[in-house]
Parts: sequence; structure tokens; C-alpha cells
Amino acid sequence: MRRKIRYGMIGGGRGAFIGAVHRMAAALDGQMELVCGAFSSDPDRSKASGSDLYLPPERCYGHYEEMINSEAALPEDKRMDVVSIVTPNDMHFAPAMMALDHGFHVICDKPLCLNINEAKQLQSKVRSTGKLFALTYNYTGYPMVKQARQMLANGNLGKVRRVVIEYSQGWLSTPLEASNQKQASWRTDPLRSGAAGAMGDIGTHAENLAEYITGLKIQQLCADLHTHVEGRQLDDDGSVLLRMTNGARGILYASQISAGEENNLRIKIYGEKGGLEWAQMEPNTLLVKWLDKPTEVLRTGGAQLYPIAQHHTRLPGGHPEGYLEAFANIYRNVAFCVQAEINHEKVDPVYLDFPGVDDGVRGMEFIDAVVRSGKDDKVKWIGI
Amino acid sequence: MRRKIRYGMIGGGRGAFIGAVHRMAAALDGQMELVCGAFSSDPDRSKASGSDLYLPPERCYGHYEEMINSEAALPEDKRMDVVSIVTPNDMHFAPAMMALDHGFHVICDKPLCLNINEAKQLQSKVRSTGKLFALTYNYTGYPMVKQARQMLANGNLGKVRRVVIEYSQGWLSTPLEASNQKQASWRTDPLRSGAAGAMGDIGTHAENLAEYITGLKIQQLCADLHTHVEGRQLDDDGSVLLRMTNGARGILYASQISAGEENNLRIKIYGEKGGLEWAQMEPNTLLVKWLDKPTEVLRTGGAQLYPIAQHHTRLPGGHPEGYLEAFANIYRNVAFCVQAEINHEKVDPVYLDFPGVDDGVRGMEFIDAVVRSGKDDKVKWIGI
Amino acid sequence: MRRKIRYGMIGGGRGAFIGAVHRMAAALDGQMELVCGAFSSDPDRSKASGSDLYLPPERCYGHYEEMINSEAALPEDKRMDVVSIVTPNDMHFAPAMMALDHGFHVICDKPLCLNINEAKQLQSKVRSTGKLFALTYNYTGYPMVKQARQMLANGNLGKVRRVVIEYSQGWLSTPLEASNQKQASWRTDPLRSGAAGAMGDIGTHAENLAEYITGLKIQQLCADLHTHVEGRQLDDDGSVLLRMTNGARGILYASQISAGEENNLRIKIYGEKGGLEWAQMEPNTLLVKWLDKPTEVLRTGGAQLYPIAQHHTRLPGGHPEGYLEAFANIYRNVAFCVQAEINHEKVDPVYLDFPGVDDGVRGMEFIDAVVRSGKDDKVKWIGI
Amino acid sequence: MRRKIRYGMIGGGRGAFIGAVHRMAAALDGQMELVCGAFSSDPDRSKASGSDLYLPPERCYGHYEEMINSEAALPEDKRMDVVSIVTPNDMHFAPAMMALDHGFHVICDKPLCLNINEAKQLQSKVRSTGKLFALTYNYTGYPMVKQARQMLANGNLGKVRRVVIEYSQGWLSTPLEASNQKQASWRTDPLRSGAAGAMGDIGTHAENLAEYITGLKIQQLCADLHTHVEGRQLDDDGSVLLRMTNGARGILYASQISAGEENNLRIKIYGEKGGLEWAQMEPNTLLVKWLDKPTEVLRTGGAQLYPIAQHHTRLPGGHPEGYLEAFANIYRNVAFCVQAEINHEKVDPVYLDFPGVDDGVRGMEFIDAVVRSGKDDKVKWIGI
Repeated sequence: MRRKIRYGMIGGGRGAFIGAVHRMAAALDGQMELVCGAFSSDPDRSKASGSDLYLPPERCYGHYEEMINSEAALPEDKRMDVVSIVTPNDMHFAPAMMALDHGFHVICDKPLCLNINEAKQLQSKVRSTGKLFALTYNYTGYPMVKQARQMLANGNLGKVRRVVIEYSQGWLSTPLEASNQKQASWRTDPLRSGAAGAMGDIGTHAENLAEYITGLKIQQLCADLHTHVEGRQLDDDGSVLLRMTNGARGILYASQISAGEENNLRIKIYGEKGGLEWAQMEPNTLLVKWLDKPTEVLRTGGAQLYPIAQHHTRLPGGHPEGYLEAFANIYRNVAFCVQAEINHEKVDPVYLDFPGVDDGVRGMEFIDAVVRSGKDDKVKWIGI
Repeated sequence: MRRKIRYGMIGGGRGAFIGAVHRMAAALDGQMELVCGAFSSDPDRSKASGSDLYLPPERCYGHYEEMINSEAALPEDKRMDVVSIVTPNDMHFAPAMMALDHGFHVICDKPLCLNINEAKQLQSKVRSTGKLFALTYNYTGYPMVKQARQMLANGNLGKVRRVVIEYSQGWLSTPLEASNQKQASWRTDPLRSGAAGAMGDIGTHAENLAEYITGLKIQQLCADLHTHVEGRQLDDDGSVLLRMTNGARGILYASQISAGEENNLRIKIYGEKGGLEWAQMEPNTLLVKWLDKPTEVLRTGGAQLYPIAQHHTRLPGGHPEGYLEAFANIYRNVAFCVQAEINHEKVDPVYLDFPGVDDGVRGMEFIDAVVRSGKDDKVKWIGI
Repeated sequence: MRRKIRYGMIGGGRGAFIGAVHRMAAALDGQMELVCGAFSSDPDRSKASGSDLYLPPERCYGHYEEMINSEAALPEDKRMDVVSIVTPNDMHFAPAMMALDHGFHVICDKPLCLNINEAKQLQSKVRSTGKLFALTYNYTGYPMVKQARQMLANGNLGKVRRVVIEYSQGWLSTPLEASNQKQASWRTDPLRSGAAGAMGDIGTHAENLAEYITGLKIQQLCADLHTHVEGRQLDDDGSVLLRMTNGARGILYASQISAGEENNLRIKIYGEKGGLEWAQMEPNTLLVKWLDKPTEVLRTGGAQLYPIAQHHTRLPGGHPEGYLEAFANIYRNVAFCVQAEINHEKVDPVYLDFPGVDDGVRGMEFIDAVVRSGKDDKVKWIGI
Repeated sequence: MRRKIRYGMIGGGRGAFIGAVHRMAAALDGQMELVCGAFSSDPDRSKASGSDLYLPPERCYGHYEEMINSEAALPEDKRMDVVSIVTPNDMHFAPAMMALDHGFHVICDKPLCLNINEAKQLQSKVRSTGKLFALTYNYTGYPMVKQARQMLANGNLGKVRRVVIEYSQGWLSTPLEASNQKQASWRTDPLRSGAAGAMGDIGTHAENLAEYITGLKIQQLCADLHTHVEGRQLDDDGSVLLRMTNGARGILYASQISAGEENNLRIKIYGEKGGLEWAQMEPNTLLVKWLDKPTEVLRTGGAQLYPIAQHHTRLPGGHPEGYLEAFANIYRNVAFCVQAEINHEKVDPVYLDFPGVDDGVRGMEFIDAVVRSGKDDKVKWIGI
């Protein structure tokens, strides 16, 4: 029986940013419906948030434990299928573990959790429960990112030699956390954010994208982390030299004090035969710079793209798709997978392409290595 | 009582393009839900299409008349509030008239209908019924378009002197309609599309955008229409000299044989103090070229934008919004208006900003004038 | 005997703009040397200007007639070979006629002269004297413009269907001539500039470029000219519908009141198989937009370019060449041709590619037709 | 007495690349004239090269020593004023020392020489002789680079926090030196090029630009150098973490195996109040990204630019200047300085702004540090 996939949300109450993003991503394709939520640990606030979203009060819970227990007790044709976790990093692990234990699939915001230890436990739990676990490294959802990955996998550019990933933002150029700005406060707090600041918040996106697109792993790294804004507890700027598993070299940087930058995530990858360039703020273009012929401009919606790019596109060329559409590709893929499970069908393999718990573990390993390398001016290269 | 606004769709069955766009636009913000449809005049096909969308079979109708009659007969807490019409141009008028007559609000794809006569009747009907009527000139939904309009309204650039609107596509460079390609077939057929081809399909978007952004009307025009592809019945390429109500001069062109172009809609407007440039394929940037200071790059999500731009934006700067988000702004605004009507509340005036039946009449007048001017090599300027 | 080609300049004294451009263009490649000049009709000012340029006072003349007569009387191994005319439009005809009559080759700034009558006389004179006559429609000197022309000549894009040429400047947005600004004064004065303002000054560049690149002629046009700045005597803004000899349609516009624009000359040409786009302000890129494959980015210095583009390039790819290099291509070509004449050699045909008196006649015909069409709201299409 | 400044060239014979660049740069502004050369160590080849340049055979020398000695023996009103050295790196030191010793000013191609030892000797020699010494780090010649430097010097962006300089080329992606390609051969040969490959050839440009624009020095660095092309003796790809004297952090990279890149030199600098971005391949634009207002697009020729930018510009905005014009700014400045010296006048300080021997020493120190750091996987930070 085909039906909309039902999900409940943990976090994402009034005033939150990423919760609303998850909801729009889930709604876009009409494959999922929000049926419940623990939007806030304040029950009244949770109900008010749910009411904004046209949810009945009885399914707006004051705590994630209450939500998971209550939903698990509902009849199968009513209870949620999937839990979306959109809280700060310190509140990913516990609800994710509990949701998995109660038989729910999980979609979790990135990074996975607070540290490698938590990450490995989650990884085991996902494996032992067999539930779906999607991690919203949403930039992998862009069709041109998928096109880039496929081109490299197919060897179109030859062996990869050089990888450059830049992620620049400027919004933490001032001590925003001092004024209790919500987004800044938890991201600069080691207890809520983890061991890294900018490197954890956006550096992990860069790390994930580098490994996703190239199909390579970062093997060794050498980092320099710095905090420019006085009084801030975590890094707000950092650069990392990379050595990849195939011998490729590269650079990754993540900065939130690059004043004047919005959300400037860019990746350039060079193989023996040519290079790729993609920029998140103009995501529908992928430049292919050939060694021996003119640069080509690949575009979302183009008839020449690989099927995996085409299957993650909704519109003809020239009708720009953006951040929400890429984010929605993760939700849509999860919905297709859950749908297939419900109906004991096979899902088209192109829809299995979304980040999961292993990517999350990788992110924790990256943060750990970067922080160790970045804090020590002596030991140069650290394996990850 | 706040609730999701319910809508039914006419057209948009399997294989359609714009129907799916309307549904994603309606779904994105969680303010509307699709409750029924007459997706095809073939009842089985309509039911199959509805089933794809998780609709119950009893609300998948084989004809729009059946849908309107049946829905009107449903209890108030179940029946649709709004009808979305996403059929080819020849099938806008009759369902829109009937829907209005039965007390439903209408969202209609552009252009409004087949000719001025139909347009005027619809205009009268909207006025007499007092129902909402939104026309999906979706490009007005982009935040940077609204910013441009507000800047000109506020006189930031002084008196407007020059307007250049270009709309280039290449997809009709070959006789695609000869192979029965669905989109090409009806758009090149005067019976289904109306008196103009490219000028009707995309030229009206350009016309609407020019008048919307400048707040001026086209007063006189002088056109050259041409059909480049042999055997095609309607224009596939045309250029128009414009004279605006305030004395501004300009150019509008619409071409579907500009081989290699995707959906290249651009507008440049020059006032006494500076110029604006906006391009649909990179919609989050608005260039402001000042006469006496450096060009500024305004960006969706920017803190300096006018409230009307900010209210039609969902994400922080650097998280690109696209075609669907702009389209969804029309749906969201309609939803807010209907919500307010249900609750006898006032809606924030920024949400009243969506195209309506008057814009549709204007489009028909434009097509009429362009066709008359473009077909006559003697009479130069035609008033509209 | 190979030697530097010697030239004298008429106009271009202190404070002039285009004279300095001609001198840099002549100097760049080391093929020409400035040996004399009538830089001003004020003999002292002419000498002072010549002194700035390290010329001996005896070859700094107070009048072009004196210069031509004196130089003609010099021994062959000393006298100039070429006269460069860089005066306002009303001072092209007489010195050019006299220079040709005295056996000198001529390089003349554009547009050719004041009207068709002068133009035809000059054309006859060039033919009867057999001297070289180069007209500095300098934008044809860009390598990527030559590449575009060759691609169309070779049929790479199929039959041309659509031509769009835009030339926007903003510097005449205010009544600059009222303050006696030198450049503005003569350009807005019909006695010195001719029958057209913006259309003469920059519209002719656009016209020349359109015909040069496409290899087609404008067969009919329909224009709208306007003067936006009060009190100005000539048009400062205009738009023209075009019909080309092969049936292609198009638009040309020239505006000097597009506030905020610098020198925005752009051309887009669409054939059956694809389109070309080139912009003067980023002149080293030529976009080739294919109907059925990804857009290609051709770049100055690229190994794939046609020989005519490569021969007009001095640097490897990525070392930007600009306005002066394009301008210098005309001078270098003239130098090579004169060199060949001196040595009774054949010049490589790629260097024969520079604009001449026929292009100049064409420009006068264009101005004449545009002004006649633009001033009459009744008669629509005018042949040229 | 004002006269053209006379220069002789060492290197730059037929087939050379950079010699022709120097000559065009010297010629452009009409302030210098080439009077002699030792274009090749093969006297016949030197004479043939000189003949191409319209030099008399007696001033085309077979060896630089012969040239310097012979020219020094010429009467003052005939002999060269300046020597331009355009040979590979191993042939900079000796001719430069000799030229200085014989009282000639020197313009030398970059990098300065082969190692720190040579560099320091040259530095002493310049100081002891008091002659002018210009090093053609030509990218500092761009007007927008000078604008950027001035903005930072004036504190417009607050304290600099982050510096990113990228220099990517792709032309050494294959073992081009194996086919004896002239440019590749010497650049990949440690005896002719020095201790570094890509880092010496283009990394030093990046280093110079970073220090020039910011006014800061690199205080510590940590590098990773690599040779991707088998059999190559020097690095063809490298990345460097930077710490600047004021505590700013950054990245510098130089790669000649970034397949598909032409000459992609870019710099991004972030201060407390905003960021700057400049790209050599579109050199007439400088983006200024403000923390709290819209990004501004500064353009060569703009009336708002600092005088130092305006004085290094020849054309109005929108008339693109390029690589040769920037290069010529060094030659023009040297010419103005020599002219002033001849005439015992003071030169306008804006024209004193060109790279010199101290920049050259700095480059050698950079190469030395990068090579030491890049070859050692243990020691992380090296001071320079």
C-alpha cells in the first residue's frame, strides 16, 4: 500500500532555523507528512509550535522520550515512520539511539553527534537495528554535486590529483554569541557544539563533500585552527592541508569570520585530464575545465547529465533549483526507501544515494584529527 | 480557526510539467493541501494521477465540471477552498468561470486565457464574485524582483528612462511539435495557445515583469514577429519597441529559437540615478549600478532589503532559493489571504502582492497589440 | 628593407582621449613609430603636445594641411607613411581626402565622416589612389570577435536566425555638455558629430560588429530614437529592429543614458545549432551555447581557436588582453600591410582583416536610415 | 632634458615568451625605447632577433658582458640607461651585478635569482650603487591590486584576519619537459630554476602579492609540496598554511597541474569589517564584500578609486586593461623615475610604487622556507 510517509520532529520549535528547513524539504515532494513533534522541551512552547504547523495538540510532545514512547504505542496505521532530529549537536545522540531502539527510521541533522565515542555507538545501533539513518549533509543533494561524483567515479577526468574545498562565512565576525543570538550561542559553546567550532559546523560539510565527490578518503591532514574573535571558546577559522588515499593533495578551509561572505562553499577538483568547479551559491552550474579542449558548462536539467543527476532534479534547465531542493532530495530518497520497505519492493538504486551514519562517524574522526593537529604546532601530519 | 487551505487541481496529470510545479509550490510552506483533482479528461488517467499523489479515488474526477459540482456539494469542512487551473490556455476560461460561480477562489496558470474577450469576462466575474484570483506570473514571486519594484516605487533610481526585457529560450529551435512532444504541441497550436506563440508563452511574462517592476504601463509598442521554423503556425521569435506611460523607452523580446538558451529571462531598467539588472537564472542577485558610486550587489536574504523582499524569502543569504520558492510565494500569499478570510482577519499587506486577473487582462491586450503590430509592416506604433 | 612604419597624427593633443589610445595602439607592437603630428590647430599647443611625445618641434605642425604638405616634401626615408586622423567627426573628411591625394595611407577614427555624401567621395578616393584606409572600428580587433566571425562563416552554428547587439553607456545621463566637458560637447553637437548622437557614436560600432561577425548585412530597420536629457540636440538613446539579408531578425540598441553602465557592448547571435555570446567588458571569453550539448567557454589564447583568432593574440590563455590590444591589432595589421608594400611582398591574409572605407560608408548609411526611421512614427521599415 | 629612456635587453630572443612581454610593456606608453640587446648567447641568433626588432646589428650583442661593456663605452647621449634581464632564473644574478656595477639601472624578471645568497649580494649591490632595481612581479601593477593595497593600508576593512591566495595553472599536467618544450624545460630543471618548481615560478608571485596587498609579512609557514608528474625534478603542486605578522592566518597555494586552469591567480583578504576579492583573469573588478552592507563592485577607471589606482590606469571604465598594461606600469614607473633622475626632478610618489630587490630577497626566503617545510613531514611551522 502506497501512502505518504509519516514523520515526527525533535527540535525545530518557533524561532529555530534548521527545523523549518527540514519541514520544507520534507513537504516539497508530497511524499512525507509531519504527524507529530517534540518541538521544544517546554511543553507549551512545543504545542504552540505544533499548532503553527496545523498539528493536533495531542501529538505535540514536551519531550522526545514522551514522543517516541507515545508514537510507538499508536496503531501502525497512525504512528510515525521516521524521526527527524534537528536539535543542537549535543541533543542528537540520545534521541537517535532511542528512536532506533523503538523501531523508527531516523533523519538527523549534521554533524552526527559530539564525539567519536557517541558516533561509534550510533553506528552499531544503526547496524543492529537495520533501520534507515540519514544524515543531512545536504550539499550532497545537489544534482551537480552528484554529477561531479559520477564523473570522477567513471574516470572522466583521470586520476584525481588535487582537491580544494573552501567554506567561508562571515556571520561570526563579531562576538554575536555575547548578545545571545540563538544560532551563535550554541555553535560557539563546546558543551553543545563539540570540540570544534567552524570546523565542526561547516568544516564537516566540506570534509563530507570532498570525500563524497572524489570517492577518496582523507588519509592524513595538517591543520591550523584559530579563534579571531576575542573571548570565543571555539575555533572560528581554520585551514587544513589534505592528503587523500590515492595520493592526491589538497586544501580544506572553513571560516566563519570571512567578513562579507554569505555561505560560500566551493569545491575544485583536478584530475589528470581536467578539473571540476562547483559553487554552492550558484549550484546549477558545474564547470568542467578540460586540459585539451574548451571548458564546458554543465547545468542542472541538462540532457547530457548522468541519470543520478537527472533523478535528483525536478525542473527543466534554466529553472533554478536551490538549497531546499537539494535538501529535499535527502527526504525524498528516504521516503522512497521507506515506501519500498513498507511495500516489500526494491527501490531504484539512484535513490539510495544519501549520507548516513558512516558519513557521520567520518565527520567525528575529522573533527578529532583537525583539533589535535590544529592545536599542536609541532606534530605535522595526523592520520585519520 | 486556522487550518491548512484545501485546493483542487484541474489538469496536471501524469506527464504534465506545470501541474507538478504548482503542487510543489503549494506544498512547500505547509499552508495548503491538495484534496482533489480533475487531472485528466480521461477518468482512469485522472484517478491514476491522483493515486500517485495519495488522493482517494473518490476525489479524483474525470471532468472539471464534475469536480466543481461535487466539491461544492461537500460539507464546508471538507470541500476545497481553491481551484488551481494548470491546463493549456484554451482550458482556462471555462473552468475559471465555473469555479468562481461556485464560490471557489482560483489560481490560474498564465496567460489568462485565449483573448481579450474572455479576459474581460473573467475580470467581471472576479469582481462580481469577490473571490480571490491569482495568476501565476511566477517570476514576480522572486524576492529580488520585489526588491527592484520597491526601489523604483521609492524613487531610489529617479525617473525611469529605459527598460530592457529579454526572454530567450532555445527549445523550439527544431520542429519539436512535429514529433508530438507534449509541451511543444499545444504551445504551437493557435487553437490551444491563442494568437501568439513565443510572445504569448513567454513574452507575456516579460510584459508582466516590465510593468510590475517599473510600476509603469506599456503605452505604445511596435513589434516584429517571425516564425523561423518551417511549418510552425505561430511566432517563435519576436522583438518589440516599447514606449512606457512616463515617457520611458525600451525593448522587449521573446524568442524560443535562441538555440542554446535555457530560460534566460533578464531585465535591465535605467533611471536617472542608476540602473538595475536581474537575471532569472541567477535570481538571488540584483545588481544596482549607480551613476556616481560603485555598483552594489544586492542578494536574497540581505539585511538591507526592503520588507517586501524579506517577507518573500525563507532562508539566510547564500542559501539559494529558486524557481519553486518564487512560485510558492504566490501560493503562500493566496493561502494567507484565504486563511485571513476564513478567520475574518486582516492579512499583512506584504502578502497581498501577487498577480491577478487585471494582470491577465493586460497580457491579453499585449498579445493582441503585438500580433497586430508584428504582422503589419506599415503601421508602426500601436497603443495598448 | 624592413623598417618601422612611420606615422603622423592629426588631432590628439593634450587632453584628448582617443588620440592617446591610437598612440598606445601604434606603439604596442613596435611596428610603427610616431614621427610627426598636427595635434592642435593652435601651433603652440601642437608643439607642446608633440614635445610630450618626444617629437622634434619642426615636425609638430599647426595645421593638417601644413603637415601633409611638409611631410610630402620630405625625402622618402624620412617622411611619414601613414596619417592617423583622431579628430571629431567633422574633421575626418578633409584631412583624409588630402592625405590620400598626397600618397599617404590613412588610419581614421570612426565613424567615417559626417554623411553619406562625404563617405562616398572618400570611398572613391581610396579606390582611385589605391592607398590603404583603415577605420578604427576597434572592437573588431578582439580575437574572440574574430573567432566568432570565423565560426559563423564556417557554418558551425548553421544559418543565423537572430542577432542581438546592445551597447549601453551611462556617462551622458546628465547634461554633461552644459559644463563644456570636452568629450560630451562635440558628441552632442550635430555640426561636429553628424545627424545622430548615441547612434552615431556607439550605434555604428554595434552595427559594424553585427555585420562583421555575421557576415550578413542589415537589410531593413525600424528605429525609435529618443533624447532623454533636456536641451540635448541629438539622440542619447535608441533601439532598432533589424532584418538581415538572410532573413535573420534582431535588435540593436545604443544608449548613453543607461546610468551606471560603463561601456557595455554585447552581442548574442543565434544560429540553427547554437548561439554565441560576447561581451566587450570581459573580452577574452566567447560563450558558445549549443542546442544539444553543454555550453563551451572559448578563451583568448586557446589552442582550439581558429588561426585568425590566434594571429591576433599576443599572450597565452589567462593573461588578459584588453581594449588596447584589440585596437593595436588594427595598427599592427596596417603596419604589416605597409611593410609588405614597401618590400613588394605578400602579407599573410589573416593580417588583411581590418575595417576600411566600405565599413565607413555602411556606417553612414546606417545612421541615415536610423535617423529617418527613428524620427517618423508612421513609416515602419526602411531599407539600407 | 626630457627624452625617451633607453634600454637594452638580455635574453628574449626569437621564441622566448617573457622577453616579448617586456618589450610590449616598455613600448606601450612611449616612454622607453629599446636600443640594444644580447638576445641570445648565439651571436647570429642575437642579431637575427635584434633585426626583427629593427635594431642596428652593431647593437645586437652575442653576450651580456659584451653588451654592458660596449654600451658603457658609448657616449652618454647614446648609451642605454636601463638593462632588462629576461633570462631564466640562473641567468639573473651575474648580469644584474655587472649592470649595476657599470652604472645601469636594472629591470629584472622574477624571481630574483637562484637562492638567498645571491639575493643578499644583489641587495647589497643595489644599495651600494644606488641604481634603480625593478623586479617584474607584474601582478602588483594592476590598478585594482593597488586599490586593494591602499584600502587595507587605510584601514577600510579593519585589521586583516584572513588571507587566501591561490595560483592555479594546468599547463604542466603532462611531462611537457620531456618533449623539450622551451618554457617547461628550464622551469622544471633545478639548475636553471632553483630549489622550487611551481612554488618558485608562480608561488613567489602569490607570496609577493599577499605581502604587497596586505602590507603584512608572512611570519611562519607550513607547507606541503608534491610532484605529481612522474620523473619531474621539482614540485608542480603545493599548499602552504600562513601566519602573518599581525596574527592573520591564511593559505597560499601554487599548482601547475591543475588541469584546465589557465593562469588563475586569485586573492581573497578578510578584515574585521569586510573582505576583498580579486582575480587576475578578470583584473578590472575588485569585489568589496562588506560585513554589514551590500557587496560593492569596484572597477578599473572608477571615479571613486584611490589616486594610486587612477594613476596606473590609462582608459575610462569599461575599456578593459589587461596583463600588458599592468606590466607596463612597472616600466612606465621606472621610466618616470629615470627621467626624474636625469632632470634632477622629484617624481610623483605614486610612480615609486614598483617591486624591487627587497621583494626579490623576500621571494628567495619564501622559497627556502617552503622547500624546507614542504620536504619534512615532522617539523610543522617554519619562520621566514
